[in-house]
Amino acid sequence: MTFYTFSEQQLRGFTENVFLTMGCPQPDARLAADVLLRSDLRGIDSHGVARLSGYVRLWEKKRINAQPLIKVVHETATTATLDGDRGLGLVVAPFAMNIAIEKAKTYGSGWVSVKNSNHFGIAGYHSLMAVEQDMIGISMTNASPLVAPTYANERLLGTNPMCYAFPAGKYPAVVVDMATAAAANGKLEIAQRANQAVPEGWVQDAAGKSSINPNQLKEGGSLLPLGSDKDHGSHKGFGLGATVDILSAVLSGANYGPWVPPFVAFLDPPTDPVGEGIGHFLGAMRVDGFRPAQDFKDHLDNWITRFKKAKTVDPEKQVIIPGEPEYNSENERKKNGIPLIDAVVNDLNELAAKLGIEGLS
Amino acid sequence: MTFYTFSEQQLRGFTENVFLTMGCPQPDARLAADVLLRSDLRGIDSHGVARLSGYVRLWEKKRINAQPLIKVVHETATTATLDGDRGLGLVVAPFAMNIAIEKAKTYGSGWVSVKNSNHFGIAGYHSLMAVEQDMIGISMTNASPLVAPTYANERLLGTNPMCYAFPAGKYPAVVVDMATAAAANGKLEIAQRANQAVPEGWVQDAAGKSSINPNQLKEGGSLLPLGSDKDHGSHKGFGLGATVDILSAVLSGANYGPWVPPFVAFLDPPTDPVGEGIGHFLGAMRVDGFRPAQDFKDHLDNWITRFKKAKTVDPEKQVIIPGEPEYNSENERKKNGIPLIDAVVNDLNELAAKLGIEGLS
Repeated sequence: MTFYTFSEQQLRGFTENVFLTMGCPQPDARLAADVLLRSDLRGIDSHGVARLSGYVRLWEKKRINAQPLIKVVHETATTATLDGDRGLGLVVAPFAMNIAIEKAKTYGSGWVSVKNSNHFGIAGYHSLMAVEQDMIGISMTNASPLVAPTYANERLLGTNPMCYAFPAGKYPAVVVDMATAAAANGKLEIAQRANQAVPEGWVQDAAGKSSINPNQLKEGGSLLPLGSDKDHGSHKGFGLGATVDILSAVLSGANYGPWVPPFVAFLDPPTDPVGEGIGHFLGAMRVDGFRPAQDFKDHLDNWITRFKKAKTVDPEKQVIIPGEPEYNSENERKKNGIPLIDAVVNDLNELAAKLGIEGLS
Repeated sequence: MTFYTFSEQQLRGFTENVFLTMGCPQPDARLAADVLLRSDLRGIDSHGVARLSGYVRLWEKKRINAQPLIKVVHETATTATLDGDRGLGLVVAPFAMNIAIEKAKTYGSGWVSVKNSNHFGIAGYHSLMAVEQDMIGISMTNASPLVAPTYANERLLGTNPMCYAFPAGKYPAVVVDMATAAAANGKLEIAQRANQAVPEGWVQDAAGKSSINPNQLKEGGSLLPLGSDKDHGSHKGFGLGATVDILSAVLSGANYGPWVPPFVAFLDPPTDPVGEGIGHFLGAMRVDGFRPAQDFKDHLDNWITRFKKAKTVDPEKQVIIPGEPEYNSENERKKNGIPLIDAVVNDLNELAAKLGIEGLS
């Protein structure tokens, strides 16, 4: 495995160009590229430009609309349901978060459930939009089924991430951004490529038996919910995944559970949909709706300071504040560039050749 | 271990009487008894009348105020911060949820962060108040520190439960009500009483080593976050516990992290508080703020039906819909009574003798 390093600017220009070639309007192409690049910068390599050709394949199959007419279809002062018109989730979700933020500016909070969308990139991007306005940001999305609920031998939920982000003062924002499975699919893919065993409790085989072979997921197996098994609280991970599914899709009118259309274009969506596209849920609450923002930030700084100096089992290790590793990665990669593995670079250059645009070199 | 069975009415009357004797106004005594009884009815024995003498001991130490002046100290259209005036959490939390519900009636959603409160019973009670109004109910609370974050060898977070409840149509409400630790303290207590080993991954000893001895928790050990260890996602359980702590306490001005005062009266609160009392966070969102309530319920019914008929590993077992076992217990115990172990009955009768009221028989 060889790594090639590219500057943020280079990858940003390339990515924007791909979205423009798909027919996205200029502001949408810029925004979608920003969401993907933020993921690469933050070190979440599975959700960045590595996914670009996946979006293009869905567009080729006409399952992504490059020029969506996104609209509010139901509304109160602080709630709304948005129809994403099969647009890129990378564009639809920020659109939804902007509505939540505007409502929060006027009424203290805002909540938007979204249907008829596609994969929205990293949840943290959308939550951090609220943080920049001194708001608490919440974002979640359902996804195609890979996870078996406790006791089940069937994939019924996606890895359904939930994210809560909080503005701090002298520290970077606290960003809890997590798949509700024991391990996200990206981690499985890394183990599959390296042909390495995974810890017990991540995956079960087609017969429902716990397995350490990551390839079982491709052979009819399932991911397991956070908690791994009933004894260790997998019913809680299932409950969290269910919460994401209900807020994102049952509430908005998107597909839920096993009806969520797959991200990969070579698999067709179910022929008996229960809604439209995939669903998201986004929220924003003004911190100063509860107490002066500076008081909150001072106390959150105190919280972070205390947790960072916690006594640890291994003196070499420190308690990790949620969002801090990603923040550090962002600073480092902005300076030193973004490393991509050769397989991703080749994939992007094949994509460029297919679209007739300049590749990466 | 012997069980004695009491009718709901008998335990309700007894409990109300205890709160009245503490000096609670009649409506507060009735409400506090209702919260505890709901827990016993729903089969969550650790949070019901078994805790009654604990509340009384905190009142004796003047850490619970039986006649609080609960008041809103900060507010927008859809957000509020409440000062619980050291009242029973059993009374303060429903007060807060009612504010959230009223705001949601007018604006679509309502969110209340609470400081200066005490233990609020089961989170599910408060979320279900919203469900009765065709709203989605959210409730969480921080609690005295028992859980060590990933890598830490120090108790810094409570078992910090979070609860999401959703109104269904023909089925009972979906109620995801979960401690963010791998196992709630109540489960440890049961194993301690029975002198039984617990699964690996629930607890670590004073040196930070994983242990199967539940008594380690009394000897300087810690509970572990949901996920149990880093490989299995304990940083996610830690992130969820942190989210509950921040929304409940950093946002309201309550104590957070290791500063949260203990529930047990024989341990003094920290002498360097960072806020007032413990904190809760309660929210309500009108379902029809997003789509017609009947559409939502029909689709949630469809969701439940699909998950209930999932293929299972063990054909004897079925996927458990969150909240269903508690709903079934409630029906069964309303009819057949509530079983209490002899230790709890003795404790309640000693309490009655101390307060000079009629005991259980």
